[in-house]
Amino acid sequence: MSNIQSYITNHKDRFLNELIELLKIPSISADSAYKDDVLKTADLIKDSLVKAGCEHVEICQTDGYPIVYGEKIIDPNLPTVLVYGHYDVQPPDPLNLWNSPPFEPVIKNTKLHPEGAIFARGACDDKGQMYMHVKAMEFMTNEGELPCNVKFMIEGEEEVGSVNLAHYVKANREKLKNDVILISDTGMIAKDVPSITTGLRGLSYVEVKVTGSNRDLHSGLYGGAVANPINVLTKMIASLHDENNHITIPGFYDKVENLSDAERAEMAKAPFSLEDYKKALDIDALHGEEGYTTNERNSIRPTLDVNGIWGGYTGEGAKTVIASKAYAKISMRLVPNQDWEEITDLFKSHFEGIAPKGVTVKVTPHHGGQGYVTPIDSIGYKAASKAYEQTFGKTPIPQRSGGSIPIVALFEQELKSKTILMGFGLDSDAIHSPNEHFGIWNYLKGIETIPYFYKHFTQMKK
Amino acid sequence: MSNIQSYITNHKDRFLNELIELLKIPSISADSAYKDDVLKTADLIKDSLVKAGCEHVEICQTDGYPIVYGEKIIDPNLPTVLVYGHYDVQPPDPLNLWNSPPFEPVIKNTKLHPEGAIFARGACDDKGQMYMHVKAMEFMTNEGELPCNVKFMIEGEEEVGSVNLAHYVKANREKLKNDVILISDTGMIAKDVPSITTGLRGLSYVEVKVTGSNRDLHSGLYGGAVANPINVLTKMIASLHDENNHITIPGFYDKVENLSDAERAEMAKAPFSLEDYKKALDIDALHGEEGYTTNERNSIRPTLDVNGIWGGYTGEGAKTVIASKAYAKISMRLVPNQDWEEITDLFKSHFEGIAPKGVTVKVTPHHGGQGYVTPIDSIGYKAASKAYEQTFGKTPIPQRSGGSIPIVALFEQELKSKTILMGFGLDSDAIHSPNEHFGIWNYLKGIETIPYFYKHFTQMKK
Repeated sequence: MSNIQSYITNHKDRFLNELIELLKIPSISADSAYKDDVLKTADLIKDSLVKAGCEHVEICQTDGYPIVYGEKIIDPNLPTVLVYGHYDVQPPDPLNLWNSPPFEPVIKNTKLHPEGAIFARGACDDKGQMYMHVKAMEFMTNEGELPCNVKFMIEGEEEVGSVNLAHYVKANREKLKNDVILISDTGMIAKDVPSITTGLRGLSYVEVKVTGSNRDLHSGLYGGAVANPINVLTKMIASLHDENNHITIPGFYDKVENLSDAERAEMAKAPFSLEDYKKALDIDALHGEEGYTTNERNSIRPTLDVNGIWGGYTGEGAKTVIASKAYAKISMRLVPNQDWEEITDLFKSHFEGIAPKGVTVKVTPHHGGQGYVTPIDSIGYKAASKAYEQTFGKTPIPQRSGGSIPIVALFEQELKSKTILMGFGLDSDAIHSPNEHFGIWNYLKGIETIPYFYKHFTQMKK
Repeated sequence: MSNIQSYITNHKDRFLNELIELLKIPSISADSAYKDDVLKTADLIKDSLVKAGCEHVEICQTDGYPIVYGEKIIDPNLPTVLVYGHYDVQPPDPLNLWNSPPFEPVIKNTKLHPEGAIFARGACDDKGQMYMHVKAMEFMTNEGELPCNVKFMIEGEEEVGSVNLAHYVKANREKLKNDVILISDTGMIAKDVPSITTGLRGLSYVEVKVTGSNRDLHSGLYGGAVANPINVLTKMIASLHDENNHITIPGFYDKVENLSDAERAEMAKAPFSLEDYKKALDIDALHGEEGYTTNERNSIRPTLDVNGIWGGYTGEGAKTVIASKAYAKISMRLVPNQDWEEITDLFKSHFEGIAPKGVTVKVTPHHGGQGYVTPIDSIGYKAASKAYEQTFGKTPIPQRSGGSIPIVALFEQELKSKTILMGFGLDSDAIHSPNEHFGIWNYLKGIETIPYFYKHFTQMKK
C-alpha cells in the first residue's frame, strides 16, 4: 500500500481546504441559536461521504440533530468496520481569548507543529479527526484498496450527550451490525510516541440552582440577616471534596475499580514529565486526590469539577446586591463500573440533602454516559497496533484517557462489538478551549495510518 | 406653615411628572456605556435647582462624574443646611425580573401603596428621595418660608464609592461650611412608624480573581489532575465563615463596637415581626451570625457577602471545561470603629494568603467607606424628630441601618458637622433590586416634612 503516501502528497492541499470549509460552519450543538449551522454541517458531511465512495448515504432524522449514515458493502462475507465520529463542536467561548475567530480557520506554525496547525473550533475535536476517516475512505475506494465493508455513522450531538444517537443505535442494530467500531476522538501521547486509548471515563453532568429570597436584595439592608445563595452555593460545592480531595458524596466510590499495584506500575512506565506538564499549563503545582499520581488522577480515578458558576452582579464596577439565585454546572468523570445514572442520583440526593435552611436547592441532570475499557488482546487492537507500527515505526502504547465518549459503552452493549480508539490529536491541541488546533502532520498521519488498520483487520479476521 | 399641604395638593401632579422625567434617564454610574446619560442627568438637576430658587448653581467637574452645587444664602448670620443626595443609580440587571422596563417609570398600586407607587430604577434610591428636597426648597422659596441658608450638593458617583466627592469636599471646606447636613437616602420602619436613621454601616468592596492554568482545559483530560479555579474559589469563599457564621479573617472583629445589654434591649423594642419578614422574602428560615437577632445582624454586626460570582461556561447546555479563571465580587459591611481601609487590607492579605498551590489569587479593592453613628441629643436630631411629630403625629424611632453611605463619615471629618438621615423609603421598596419603587404617599410626605425640619432647626439654633 505504498501508494497511500503518494496519494496524500498529491491531494494534501485539497484535504486541507475541504477540512477548512467544514470548520467554517459553527455547528455548536449546545446552543440552539446555531441550529441552521448544525443542519448545514450534516449536509456537508453527507456530500463528503458520497464523494468518498459511500453508498446509501442518508440524513437520518432524530428528535434532535440528524445522524449522517453511509456505507460501502463490497462482500457480505468480508468483515465490516463501523466508523463513528461527530460533526458538532463545543461552544467557543470565552471568545476574547481566541487569537483568531473560532470559525475562521487559519494555519499557523507552532513549536510542536512546525509544519503548521489549523486553528479553529472543532479542528481536532472532532471534525479534523472524523474527516481523516472520510479521506482514508476516499483513498481506499479510488485506489482499489478497500479490503472490507465500511459503515459510517456521524452524529451531531456528541457534545451534548448523544441522547438521540442512543435511540438510533437501539433501533438500528441490524443496519449497524459490524465486526469492529473505529473512532478517532481521542489523543496520542506525542508525535513520536503513538498510543491507543484503551479506557474512557464515564460522565455525569448536572446543573444546580440555589434560590434564596423571592428577589434580589440590598446587601446593606439584608446582609447578615438572610442566607446569601452565592455564599451558600460556595459552601455546598466546597463540601464536595474533603481535605485529601476525596469526593464526599456517600456511595460515590463504592463501585470504583481499584487497579492492582502491578497495573499501576505498568501505567507509570508511560513517558511523562511533571515539569513539562506544569510548564505547558503555566502552573507552579499540581493538585488532586491524595495517594494517586497525576496520570492516575486523570484516568483511573473519578473526579468532580465545576464547569461553570454564576450569580449576582458580574458586570463592570460594583453592585451591592444579594442575588436571589446562584447557579453552577458540575460534571463528574467516572471510571469503569460506576454507573452514571446511579452516580447522578447519588449526587442529586446528597446535594439537595445538604441544602441549609433559608434556601431551596434543585439539581437538574444534563446528560451522562458510562466509562469504557477495551482489552489489548483483541483483533481490533492488534490490527491498530500493526497499523501504527507501519506508519510511525513504533509500537503504540495502550493508555487510559481521562475523557469520555459516553456512547462507546452503549455501542458494545447494543452492537456487541469492541471499539478501537485511534486518536491522532495531542493534549496541547486545546480541545474545548480557546485556540483549539490540529497539526497538519497529525491530520495527514491519521489519513495514512487508517487504511493499514483496514488491511490488517481484514487479514487477521480471515 | 399650614400652606405646605395646600401647596402639595396644588402641585402634586407636576411633582410626580418631574420625578418621572428624571427617572427616565439611565444614569448608571457603574457602567461607562451610560456616560452621556449620567451627564444629562446632572444637567437636569442643575436646571431643577435653579427653578427651585437656588443661586450660583453650577456643574462642578471632577475626575469622574460632576457634582451639582447650588445655594441660597439669605443671611450669613442664620444657620446653614447642606443637603446631600445623588443622581446616579444602581445597574438594573437582572433585567428579565423587572415587570416593566427600569427606565420607563410607571405608577402602580400595591398592597403597601394603595395610593400608587412609581416603579423605576432610582425611584427611591436616590432620585425620588433627593428630589423631595428640591421640591421642599421650591415651596420654601416660592411661599416665603425659607428660614435659613441652604446649600445643595448632589453627586453622580454614590453607587460607585463617591471617590471624587471626597476630593471635592476636602478641596471646598469653606464653600460647603454648614451647621447640619441633611440626607434622605435611607428608609423608615413603616408608613405609620416613622424613624430616623442613627447609624450606618461602613463598606469594603473588593473583587477577587483566581487563575489556574494559562488556558481553559478539557475537564476529561485534566479533571482531577489540576486545581480547578472555580472549585478553589468556592473553597476559599466558604472558608471565610465558620460554622457559627463568624467571619474568619484574622483581626476582622478587633475593633467592632460591642453594644451593652441595655442598648441591645432598647433596640429590641422596635416593632418587628420575624414571620412577616420571612413572608415578605418568601423564605422558610433566617440565617446569620450565631448569638445575634435578625435586627442586630443587619445593623450592629459586620457582614461579608458575595455580590457576584462567575467563571467557566454559563451558557445554555453543557460544556466540559475547566476554566482558567474564576471571579467574585465580595463586600463587607462594617460597623463603627472598623476602619474600611484596614479591613480591606486584612481581607486582601488573608485571602491571597490562603490561596492553595497551583493557582494565583489577586484581590482588587473597589471602594469603601467608614460607618457612622449620630447622637440623638443633637439639635439636628431633635429638629428632625419634631418635624416628623408634626406631619406623622408620632415621635420617630431612632434606628441603625444596615446600609452604607460611605461619604457621611467623611463629611463629619472634613466639615465638622453632623448628618441627619431623614429617610422616607420602605424596606420593601426593592432598592438595588428589580422593580424598585417609591410610594407616592412617601414622596409627598417627605416634601411635607422637610420644611418643618428647617423651621425647627433654625428656631432651636437661635
